[in-house]
Amino acid sequence: MPVKPPASRLHETVPREDAARDGATPKYFLVKSELSTVIDGLSEGAILPTERDLAQRFGVARMTVRQAIRELRLEGRLERNGRSTAVAGPKLVQPLTLGSYTEGVRQQGLTPGRRPITFEEIPADEALAGHLHIAAGATVLHLERLLLADNQRVGLENTYLPASRFPALMDEFDPTTSLYAYLHASGVVFAEADERIETVLASPREVRLIGTSPALPMLLLNRVTRDPSGHPVERVRSLFRGDRFSFTARLRPES
Amino acid sequence: MPVKPPASRLHETVPREDAARDGATPKYFLVKSELSTVIDGLSEGAILPTERDLAQRFGVARMTVRQAIRELRLEGRLERNGRSTAVAGPKLVQPLTLGSYTEGVRQQGLTPGRRPITFEEIPADEALAGHLHIAAGATVLHLERLLLADNQRVGLENTYLPASRFPALMDEFDPTTSLYAYLHASGVVFAEADERIETVLASPREVRLIGTSPALPMLLLNRVTRDPSGHPVERVRSLFRGDRFSFTARLRPES
Repeated sequence: MPVKPPASRLHETVPREDAARDGATPKYFLVKSELSTVIDGLSEGAILPTERDLAQRFGVARMTVRQAIRELRLEGRLERNGRSTAVAGPKLVQPLTLGSYTEGVRQQGLTPGRRPITFEEIPADEALAGHLHIAAGATVLHLERLLLADNQRVGLENTYLPASRFPALMDEFDPTTSLYAYLHASGVVFAEADERIETVLASPREVRLIGTSPALPMLLLNRVTRDPSGHPVERVRSLFRGDRFSFTARLRPES
Repeated sequence: MPVKPPASRLHETVPREDAARDGATPKYFLVKSELSTVIDGLSEGAILPTERDLAQRFGVARMTVRQAIRELRLEGRLERNGRSTAVAGPKLVQPLTLGSYTEGVRQQGLTPGRRPITFEEIPADEALAGHLHIAAGATVLHLERLLLADNQRVGLENTYLPASRFPALMDEFDPTTSLYAYLHASGVVFAEADERIETVLASPREVRLIGTSPALPMLLLNRVTRDPSGHPVERVRSLFRGDRFSFTARLRPES
């Protein structure tokens, strides 16, 4: 016999649209819901009326409209376009695979790019040494790059590789190109990776580099990739704009 | 030959800790960084000094301390404990697999639970009909449940199943138990699922149900699970607290 929800919770069973009209829902969220419907009917790049016009139309204060627009921007439904607010395109859909950022972006018909920020040799701290199965203090190649899609900054990637394994990388590798293409050409085979995905807030430095609003929710991916012998090849920390990216996985039964 | 970052960007190559001391970094972030180091040295559940004490210690305004604490709470480093602020435990790590929420939480030594909010028959709208490969208007079983871990509300799950395929489910299934266990016992085999993961803000209704701060970044998972014949078995929309959850995947080469 099914356990029915307690009576005190039955008001929660109304659909979300109706819930938005009950008294407990803040005004900005009502405006957000209505704006969301308006946006559904517009095409990408369409310019929204001004805050003042929207405030008049919805009969609310400009601050209320501003909060609704702010959330819709954080969620990637709207974006700044000069001094206006425009309808944003859909989020990019990046597959969670052993493939590279480059391939994922190309599959969506966009041009991938990378802008090098840091390319240096550093000593491994204990955590990094543990991830890469090297001695603490051993030299690590650190490559930090802005990730671009159609020339827009969408993320920041920090890659760490054991220097002893890739002695020629600093001289040979062009950091504006695909690192995975270089590694594959060098004979490195990727056998598996463990990836962890979570949401974090951008730091002020990341905000400056990626050019987002402060405190934009970001998607953080931490990855360790191993070769067929089980040796870690790289440790990667990738940060993606939460308003521009989603990730997909195809799940199959575990063997 | 490596492309070096342009000179104008070289200041970006300093480690994050030093970057936090340059003039461009807001005070709250300096406090956040210092607090983060303090938290690293404390154990789970430890109570933080008051805002007033911290403001004195760091020589900043209470509002500055409050913003730092707010971000550390949104990121799951701190949590409310009555009127105090306490050090939070690590985020739960949930594997992205065909397994159930139940199994994932149990693997971490916590007790999973579900609190039914909605259990109803509804007509499929066009989007849902498309996902489930049924006719628009056909009856769908809709099950909405709060997800619990050690009796704490951590997420909200909405599952939609074609009613024609599971005619006895409404009568037989106890919505406080594992749906996947019921489906497996009914002979349903899960062959694969497509899952999409992104970050969104909680709506006021979700805030009320899950009991989080407003505008907490959440992790949204949308899933369609198919049986061996390729028929969709379920469409699931799961929302997890971004401050309490992370997801992991083991990636292997595509065949």
